[in-house]
Amino acid sequence: MKQVRLGLIGFGNVGQGLAQILAERAEEYARKFGLDLRIVAITDALKGSVYNADGLAPSALLEKITRDGNLVGIAQDDPGICEPGWDALDLVTHSNADVIVELSYTDLKTGEPAASYIEAALRSGKHTVTTNKGPVALHYARLQALAEQNGVKFGVEGSVMSGTPALRLGMELLAGAGVRKVQGILNGTTNFILTQMELGMDYTSALAEAQRLGYAEADPTGDVEGFDAAGKVVILARLLFGKTLRMDQVDRHGITQLTPLDIASATAAGERWKLIGTVECITGGIRASVCPQRLPISHPLAGVSGATNAACFTTDLLGEVTLIGPGAGRLATGYAVIEDILAIYR
Amino acid sequence: MKQVRLGLIGFGNVGQGLAQILAERAEEYARKFGLDLRIVAITDALKGSVYNADGLAPSALLEKITRDGNLVGIAQDDPGICEPGWDALDLVTHSNADVIVELSYTDLKTGEPAASYIEAALRSGKHTVTTNKGPVALHYARLQALAEQNGVKFGVEGSVMSGTPALRLGMELLAGAGVRKVQGILNGTTNFILTQMELGMDYTSALAEAQRLGYAEADPTGDVEGFDAAGKVVILARLLFGKTLRMDQVDRHGITQLTPLDIASATAAGERWKLIGTVECITGGIRASVCPQRLPISHPLAGVSGATNAACFTTDLLGEVTLIGPGAGRLATGYAVIEDILAIYR
Repeated sequence: MKQVRLGLIGFGNVGQGLAQILAERAEEYARKFGLDLRIVAITDALKGSVYNADGLAPSALLEKITRDGNLVGIAQDDPGICEPGWDALDLVTHSNADVIVELSYTDLKTGEPAASYIEAALRSGKHTVTTNKGPVALHYARLQALAEQNGVKFGVEGSVMSGTPALRLGMELLAGAGVRKVQGILNGTTNFILTQMELGMDYTSALAEAQRLGYAEADPTGDVEGFDAAGKVVILARLLFGKTLRMDQVDRHGITQLTPLDIASATAAGERWKLIGTVECITGGIRASVCPQRLPISHPLAGVSGATNAACFTTDLLGEVTLIGPGAGRLATGYAVIEDILAIYR
Repeated sequence: MKQVRLGLIGFGNVGQGLAQILAERAEEYARKFGLDLRIVAITDALKGSVYNADGLAPSALLEKITRDGNLVGIAQDDPGICEPGWDALDLVTHSNADVIVELSYTDLKTGEPAASYIEAALRSGKHTVTTNKGPVALHYARLQALAEQNGVKFGVEGSVMSGTPALRLGMELLAGAGVRKVQGILNGTTNFILTQMELGMDYTSALAEAQRLGYAEADPTGDVEGFDAAGKVVILARLLFGKTLRMDQVDRHGITQLTPLDIASATAAGERWKLIGTVECITGGIRASVCPQRLPISHPLAGVSGATNAACFTTDLLGEVTLIGPGAGRLATGYAVIEDILAIYR
């Protein structure tokens, strides 16, 4: 049995999802994979920091956060736990974690502060896993090189399609099949809105419904203007084709201009509008775009409805291979971390 | 660079597909994976046997087989090659192959002679890869145990959905996600026939069209009565859930009873008939079936048309994850062998 100690930077939805997975499945993972996964440290700018070199009980963490919204005072109930007042860099330096799980906040402009946390973790010689798009889209080449220099792994499965293993499918299982192009429904919010519009809503009502259900944020720009999908396109370009693109090199169009008439006209023609992210090898380079497209119903991405995501790989040897699954959710994204950890120790 | 020498038992469609892949991509694989893949030996009951300890040129093999339909006399052109008159067991015993690639003929009643060839290969301490359903459906537990005893790997990716990596997705990438059920379109021939029937053909004409295109055999029983899909269901039960089923434990129904009226009635209700293979964990065991089912258009398997295959995994952590891709074809099945070899040496 190999003990794998996890240090979490950030304890929001994904961190709590990870804790829930471990509360329910740590024994199964120990039995199946010979890995004893334990959260030993957490730091969260808003929720406090907590540490136990021997491991924190995930159920106790979840109970505390559900009751109080933070971890402050959790040490009172248990003398084995301390609340060291750590920030992210303290956690990297002072905890005994084998894997740093970076789940903090970031954006697609700088990738900070997540990128700096990841850099510190890799420099300290620890395996590092993130589910944040920003640092992967903007800094992957540099961070991966740093991981190699330090003899550790950098896991990023959750940065595209959450725990649906699109990156590992493309990078490992299809690695010898000659992948030429990837097209994806990479943003669940816009796909949900388009599905609602097919059911008869106009754009504004569909957006409001997405906001009501928590799929879209109060400022929906990142989703509806295609920035989120463009970040994932940049990640796919890097991981599948080894090409570094800037965000502004993605030919990006959102869904805000689509009218009920556009939707109806596609439906009448047996087609469906989808916001498609594409990365394609072309002579001398790569072409990347995010753009609403009318797909025939027979296209493997046309039937992907609601907040679901999908990636369709065009390959020399297998033709088209399509993977469909969730693109968000606390358990689905928490599972992306598990996948990366299993791959690190496989 | 690691040299990986392959010994092929059988040089039909799949073996030739594998040779074509290596003719075109061996250099790419060497560069990307550090593996120098070489075919050193081939034996085929009808096409002859050929051996070169340093490797046979795949292009020369393909040229000879295309010209003459066999490999007999190929040594005349090249003093490095010999035609040793080997059968499968000779190849296992006398060649210097590191991996035995078993691509001979077999059936779903005994799994022979493929199963015996695989057994001999594993006993001799060689990694073994097969794309044959029979030995995997009927003898996997025994053969896998033999592989473990001998410290080698037994690769079977090609036995379900050819090179579309459904088995590895379920067994590796989703291994920690709590897979509870798998539903699949596991037979391309019947899916092609059902698609043709939706376009207006009756069953007999659709079958004739499938036969004309080479999707269905002269005796189509194995496909249309669901035996082929049932074999794959047995394989999925074993590999994903660790349960050994006999073929007759699969509740099996074919598509021969479906009428144009059935098809039209489903279409009118916004549904589609698909031949669905299902393996499901239930309290105290497992339930396995192959059965035509009416799926709503919104189901991820409903949009899978023509000879394409698909598998939909129902998981605790990710909900439904669906993989769609080819289920047959010489390059697609040849690539399954490549995937297994890459996994052996990863």
